[in-house]
Amino acid sequence: MGTIMSEARRGIIPGIVVEVARSEGVNPEKLTSMVARGVAVIPCNSSRDRKLGKPVAIGEGLTVKVNVNVGTSVDLSDPYLELEKARIGLRYGADTVMDLSTGGDLDYTRRLLIRELDSPIGTVPIYQAAIESIRKYGSIIDMSEDDVLNTIERHFKDGVDFVTLHCGITYKALESLKKGRRVAGIVSRGGAFIASWMLHHGRENPLYENYDYILELAREYDVCISLGDGLRPGCIADANDIAQNMELLTVAELVERSRGMDVQCMVEGPGHMPIHQIAANVALEKAVCKGAPYYLLGPIVTDIATPYDHIAAAIGSAIAGLAGADFLCVVTPSEHLGLPLPEDIKHGVIASKIAAHAVDLYRVGGRVLDIDKAMGEARARLDWVTQFKLSMDPEKASEIHGRVKSRSGTCTMCGEYCVYKILDRKLYT
Amino acid sequence: MGTIMSEARRGIIPGIVVEVARSEGVNPEKLTSMVARGVAVIPCNSSRDRKLGKPVAIGEGLTVKVNVNVGTSVDLSDPYLELEKARIGLRYGADTVMDLSTGGDLDYTRRLLIRELDSPIGTVPIYQAAIESIRKYGSIIDMSEDDVLNTIERHFKDGVDFVTLHCGITYKALESLKKGRRVAGIVSRGGAFIASWMLHHGRENPLYENYDYILELAREYDVCISLGDGLRPGCIADANDIAQNMELLTVAELVERSRGMDVQCMVEGPGHMPIHQIAANVALEKAVCKGAPYYLLGPIVTDIATPYDHIAAAIGSAIAGLAGADFLCVVTPSEHLGLPLPEDIKHGVIASKIAAHAVDLYRVGGRVLDIDKAMGEARARLDWVTQFKLSMDPEKASEIHGRVKSRSGTCTMCGEYCVYKILDRKLYT
Repeated sequence: MGTIMSEARRGIIPGIVVEVARSEGVNPEKLTSMVARGVAVIPCNSSRDRKLGKPVAIGEGLTVKVNVNVGTSVDLSDPYLELEKARIGLRYGADTVMDLSTGGDLDYTRRLLIRELDSPIGTVPIYQAAIESIRKYGSIIDMSEDDVLNTIERHFKDGVDFVTLHCGITYKALESLKKGRRVAGIVSRGGAFIASWMLHHGRENPLYENYDYILELAREYDVCISLGDGLRPGCIADANDIAQNMELLTVAELVERSRGMDVQCMVEGPGHMPIHQIAANVALEKAVCKGAPYYLLGPIVTDIATPYDHIAAAIGSAIAGLAGADFLCVVTPSEHLGLPLPEDIKHGVIASKIAAHAVDLYRVGGRVLDIDKAMGEARARLDWVTQFKLSMDPEKASEIHGRVKSRSGTCTMCGEYCVYKILDRKLYT
Repeated sequence: MGTIMSEARRGIIPGIVVEVARSEGVNPEKLTSMVARGVAVIPCNSSRDRKLGKPVAIGEGLTVKVNVNVGTSVDLSDPYLELEKARIGLRYGADTVMDLSTGGDLDYTRRLLIRELDSPIGTVPIYQAAIESIRKYGSIIDMSEDDVLNTIERHFKDGVDFVTLHCGITYKALESLKKGRRVAGIVSRGGAFIASWMLHHGRENPLYENYDYILELAREYDVCISLGDGLRPGCIADANDIAQNMELLTVAELVERSRGMDVQCMVEGPGHMPIHQIAANVALEKAVCKGAPYYLLGPIVTDIATPYDHIAAAIGSAIAGLAGADFLCVVTPSEHLGLPLPEDIKHGVIASKIAAHAVDLYRVGGRVLDIDKAMGEARARLDWVTQFKLSMDPEKASEIHGRVKSRSGTCTMCGEYCVYKILDRKLYT
């Protein structure tokens, strides 16, 4: 059995494509052709035998997908808390989970999440390679290329469905970064690990240099590569500099090489971005990467929204989605402040889902519009039970509605002066 | 002393323009010319003797302003709760307050807010006219034109700085509404009051028919007119129908007549709107109303976001602001569910401010960009005190950061693997 992409390219319609096409409401032939061209991806490690509980397709014209990040840290390293966070994320509508663990037993946490969850799972192997190097040698500097490649293979063997690899940070891009004199420098953890190694050794990025080998591994395990944006801006002032765009152009070349090896891949984007630059950024990615699915972290549209970065990200996500972005990474209220707790995950996912759904009303239409129409109808009928059921958070909606009792069967905003009491609906419907 | 607009048109630079120009960082001559042309307004009732505590200018290229609605309802009618809500709204960055009271002593509540607050105050006089008619005659049907006009004058005399008047709901627009067979009908309370009166009597809108008289009153008290959108859509399915746009075109004619009388005016917009229609809606308003300041309620970009409509509105507000909207009305988490409590007001205002600020980074630039840059610098220095100070909610930001202690002076997200610990900043700055 080849990769999902290789089958699609040979004109075979893989079973998982049929399954996903049904849930997306698209034609399986069309989705197969999209996978073949690399404008859609279906991350599913071959070790899962194409039997992922809830497989998803990400890409052109499909519903916008949402990823939720979980993962331990040095200060808070309970694998079961991370599992709980992942489950909450999935309950409120996330489609995929990334394990970004950096504390405690990294193998154990990753394997736990892969075993217990039915969504595609992503990881960032360089975290583990770097952290084990620090644990073993006292520093990231002594990490060998083999350490990096072996860790990637360990993740692939464990069954991860997609991995972020910061292959696009070239030495030249780092030199440009230095010249650019950024305010906030590098804010990607993976990017910072690799850059510190590269700058110390004066050597090229091992992920870039070993890209062909990595692609061979990815093909063997049918892992989808998510080309990370290690030089993404960390504040509005740094947005869209030469280094960031140089990395994107390198990534565009790597997309082509990935497709050439029948390995599915997507592209990651910022980060912090002023609203007027978002559409242009998405258009550039779509153009140079020839329609590769675009996976955005936010973007956050101002630096000062803390502790409401989930709102700043929802704004950026909606604008990006309108411009063609396919995949949104959740930003939580604890962004820039600390590891998110379960409640933060819930609020972050809901904010992302609001953005994704708002985009889907236009991007997908039809059945998505029907959901909102049903809500409009329930409102006009003053049917509160249906309104709660259709809301993003039925429990909380019902709680707010019931906080103070209305005496008129409406709500306490207008009471008896509710528009649906004032004006006979028969007059205008 | 004439109106602010009449002075501006005669080439006099009113003192209040100088004051506002300073806080906006614009040239007073330029702002005067904008007021003269009607592309900016400075709402300030003449009874205030131009001595409003915190006057604001709303319009073309100026910082995006935020209005917070407060007001009693039948089920919850404590004027002092509304005053508290208004103060919280202003504390978190609202620029103006509208009193939308519909319960208890309406005169008392309005006068209390005017007396106690230093921001411009707006009202919707038709609420009081309709409610007093219901209290007096048992129905809105018996409300006379004099009742309406006298209530408007009472608000003007009390010192309100701007009023929403639904003058654009013509009989023809209501006929179009009937033909359109909307899902959610009319959702504007003022619109519903007027429409039920019009449909019962088979008569034209008294606010439309008496517009010249209303303008004379407005000129006498120098009140800024906010032309309401009584036929705004109440769900995505109803967005941008003929009735809505017919009202906008009528409003555009009324804008011209207002300018002709040296009365400042602005235009109100929806409501519920799918994201891909927002920019077009703003462009249409700016075109037909010849640059009149555009005041949007949200827009909310999906119907199912309850109880997070403040996030759905922040998305719509940012997109509208990017397209040229000038004034945002806060939507709170209790929208569609009940009268907002103080905590809802806080969250609603912050969400609107995030949208407004994100727009201002582009629309105003300069000093606004500096705020975000300072945050980026504080992050790179791991200077937590400055980060909290610059955040939209210092208390909450500090609380989240301190929830679990980090052992490395960073935060619990990355701990010792913080990018600013991994990578020596000297390497790239």
